[in-house]
Parts: sequence; structure tokens; C-alpha cells
Amino acid sequence: MKIIRSPAAMTAWSEGLRRQGVTIGFVPTMGALHDGHRSLIREARLQCDALVVSIFVNPTQFGPQEDLAKYPRPISHDRAICRQEGVDVCFEPTAEAMYPAGFQTTVTVPAIARRWEGEARPHHFSGVATVVTKLFGMVRPHRALFGQKDFQQSVLVQQLVKDLNLGVAIMVRPTVREQDGLAMSSRNIYLSADERHRAVTLYQSLRAGAAVIRTGERNAKTIRLAMAQVVTQQPTISIDYLTVSDPFTLEPVSLVTSKVVLLGAIRLGSVRLIDNLLVAVPHRSS
Amino acid sequence: MKIIRSPAAMTAWSEGLRRQGVTIGFVPTMGALHDGHRSLIREARLQCDALVVSIFVNPTQFGPQEDLAKYPRPISHDRAICRQEGVDVCFEPTAEAMYPAGFQTTVTVPAIARRWEGEARPHHFSGVATVVTKLFGMVRPHRALFGQKDFQQSVLVQQLVKDLNLGVAIMVRPTVREQDGLAMSSRNIYLSADERHRAVTLYQSLRAGAAVIRTGERNAKTIRLAMAQVVTQQPTISIDYLTVSDPFTLEPVSLVTSKVVLLGAIRLGSVRLIDNLLVAVPHRSS
Repeated sequence: MKIIRSPAAMTAWSEGLRRQGVTIGFVPTMGALHDGHRSLIREARLQCDALVVSIFVNPTQFGPQEDLAKYPRPISHDRAICRQEGVDVCFEPTAEAMYPAGFQTTVTVPAIARRWEGEARPHHFSGVATVVTKLFGMVRPHRALFGQKDFQQSVLVQQLVKDLNLGVAIMVRPTVREQDGLAMSSRNIYLSADERHRAVTLYQSLRAGAAVIRTGERNAKTIRLAMAQVVTQQPTISIDYLTVSDPFTLEPVSLVTSKVVLLGAIRLGSVRLIDNLLVAVPHRSS
Repeated sequence: MKIIRSPAAMTAWSEGLRRQGVTIGFVPTMGALHDGHRSLIREARLQCDALVVSIFVNPTQFGPQEDLAKYPRPISHDRAICRQEGVDVCFEPTAEAMYPAGFQTTVTVPAIARRWEGEARPHHFSGVATVVTKLFGMVRPHRALFGQKDFQQSVLVQQLVKDLNLGVAIMVRPTVREQDGLAMSSRNIYLSADERHRAVTLYQSLRAGAAVIRTGERNAKTIRLAMAQVVTQQPTISIDYLTVSDPFTLEPVSLVTSKVVLLGAIRLGSVRLIDNLLVAVPHRSS
């Protein structure tokens, strides 16, 4: 496996392969790789001739009060996983190479970014949209894979690629979960043993929402209440949001008439967790 | 010469050539081609194996009170020039293909866009930055050529390409002028015969600024005054701005210590004209 740090070298590697008709797959990550990333890497390995994984903890998508400094950076462990999974290039640009002096261009996807994570984290999505555009420019992949765990991000990246004609096929892969249902996340290591135990509440809450939809409930307010009840049983957990939304626009719906996404964010002590479930609604046979 | 309207067909054409190692040159235009465009096209023709000219009057870079509706669109004339100059593809996307329903992504280059044209035309440069990013995505050129006439735009595009790692080499070519010195512009046709006669005042004003710099003047205020005096002799012309600025940041300088750009914008009746001159400052041999 090649480790490339220079953006120019990365582009040269990719351009050389593109000229030979090689299909390049790309999994952008912030490192601290877990089985969710592994599932993206495996899928990309199956679908593409050449495979690049980037590891870059992007400072511009963190807020000033967020966990940039303490975000885990187990680089040897990450490279070992990439090697195991047959990654061709581990691309590890420095912050200085990504954002040199004078850097100023920003990409925004305002309607998708407005709600939910965008409300809780004001500059998060312009940071994501800008770094994804940059990474695509450097890596020049044919295909890139993202996890459904960051649902709003995956919708944003799809809109971005369409709007800016970036010519990268985006694939979104299902969330990988721990045995109890907790969505895998690099931030789960912040949880104490007790918090870890209670963290599954978010998934249980989303499952409760999906369950009432399956029993025929169509009123979003009632569905939200069912989700919230699961969380409020845990007095030490606070709800950031629990919503029933359109899976394309992310706007909240008042009545469930077709596929929806249940999005949730909670806080357990100082740790913030997000998760989501897509729920298909069968046509009523009344 | 091929006329391509579909963005997907444009990308397919370019990708096919790129795989063969063909160097693609690109001249993005809003049509109404004049000798300024012709100079860009000729230079691109000399430098590149394949040559794409786009013709797209981009609505998002016009303000609500501006001349989008009346902007000239002499498409047969434009295609004839492209044919004469050996252009391979005339790319003519529709506004619907560029900005389909749901389109929302915006690219901004805030520090470069803040002053001068950006002040006079608030959303102009985000429109330019976004459409250039999109056109580069569709055309996938190795090299793109821009005219110095739109100096701030040329600086913005260079910053954009660097910041977003778009991998396109940007060339800026000197302004082509009418015999009396008026910078060629598609908007010059808006001028009445009398206005056309007086329009050269802007160029004369910039020349006056350059002349006092060459005589040793280094105080920007004095230089601006020399430029303004030329324009105020014409009572029917109003000054939007006349400035002595850094050619990289576009920030105004107070003292001329190295190369500067003299930027100007004036109004003659309902017509707004811009022009600029780069002035190198020789080291003083005092």
C-alpha cells in the first residue's frame, strides 16, 4: 500500500490510472476507522479497480467548542486496516496542504445544510462540502462511498456532486451497528461504560418511531412523540432533535405519505450522538 | 465543428480525449464574441490539441436590475467565429441543464469578491465562481483562458482553482482594445455613437494614473486623483471606482511599492464599463 501525503502526487497517481481506463474508488474518512468504514472500503474494493482511502481530520467542519483537538488519530491502526482490506493508496494530506495561506473558497449547499446537524453545527456542512470538493479534485475518483450513518451529509454530497457536475458516482452504504444496535462511530470511544450502555437509546427511539409507522400511524407529531418517549425515560439523556423528514430535501413532514427518514441527535453528558432510519411506507390497501 | 448542448455529452467527449492523452483547452464565454475572445481562442488553439468554447449567458451572475434580458446573443455569428478559429466543440448548455430544479450549491471566494465589482454587483462573483466550477466539471479541460479585461474575475478564478484543487491551468491574456484604446467588450454595443466616442475616457484615465506612477509618484491618493481628473472633465460620466490595488489580493494600497493594478469602472448613461492596467514599478535608483 502506498502512503501519499502530497495532493499533487495524489492527482498524478490517479490521472495516470484514469488514462489507462482504470476505475478509481474513493472512501474519504477522518480516520479512527471502524467496521462502518471497513464496510465502505470492502464495497469499494469489490466495485473498483483501484482504491484510495483518505485520512484527514478536517478542521473546518468542527465548531470552536467541538472535539477537533481530542478527535482520535490512531494512524498506525488505520493504515493496518487499509492494508488488510487491500487499499491501494492511503492519502494523508496535511492541514497546511489542504488550507494554505490565502485559502478562502467555500462551497455551500444551503437548503440541505439548513436544518438538523446544520442548526446544531453552523459551519459544519460548508466545511464538509468544501473539503469533499477539494478531495474529489485531488483524488479524481470515478466513485466515492459514504455511510448512511451521516445521513444529512450523504444527501448533501449527492446534491453537491450533481450541482457542481463533479462527475463522481456517490454510493451510500447502510449503517453498521454494534450488537445492541448502537451505530458505529469514531466518537463512541468518548462514552464511559455507563454512557455506552445507555447510548443505544437513540437507536431504540428511532426503532420505536419506525414501529408506530408500521402499525399505520401517519401523523408525524405522534411518531415524534413515540420516539421522544423512549429517550425521556432516560433522564440523563437530552434530545437535540428527533424528526420525521423527507429523505431527499430533509424538510420535516407533517404527514407520512411515502418513504421518510427518522433522524435523531442526542446528548449523553458531553458526547453528542446521531443516528437515522429510513422507513418505507407501504401503500394502504384500505 | 461539433455543437454540443448536453453537459453529459460534453463530459463524455472530453473524457474520451483525455484517456488518449489529448490536451484540452477551454475558453468559457457568454457569446457575443469579439476580438478579445478571438485572441483567447487563438492562443488556446496554439497551446492545446483540442479546443472547447462555451457560450452560456449565465443568469446567476447578473443582478436583478442588470442587462440579462438584453444581453446580445448573436449565436450564428459566434459559431462562425468559432468555426473560423478552428474550435473543435462549441458547448452551448441551456439554463435548464445548468440549473435544474433543486439546484442550490454555491461557490464563493469571499476575500477576492469583496471589493470593486463585488461591491457594485453583490452576487456577481458567486455566480461566476459557481458557473466556472460547473463548466470545468462538464468540460474537464487541462487549460482555460480568461481575458485580463475582467481582472478581478481572472484573479478570482485563479484562487478558486487553487483552493478547490480543480486541476485546470489558468491563463490570463492581455486586454484587446479598439483603435482609440477602448477595451473590447460585448457591452460596447449598448453605447450610442456619442457615448462610444466618450467611452475611451476610462482607458485615458487609467493611462494618466500609469503615467504619474512612471514619473515617480508613489502616493495612491495622488494617483487616484490624477485618474479621477480625466473622468471629471467629462460631466456626463460618473465614476463607480478608480483604484490603485494589489494585483493579487485586490486590496487598495496607500503607497505604491511594487506592481499594482489600476482598476476602474464608470457609468455613461445606462452603460457601465470596466477596465484596468497593470503597472510595474521599477526599483528606484536614487
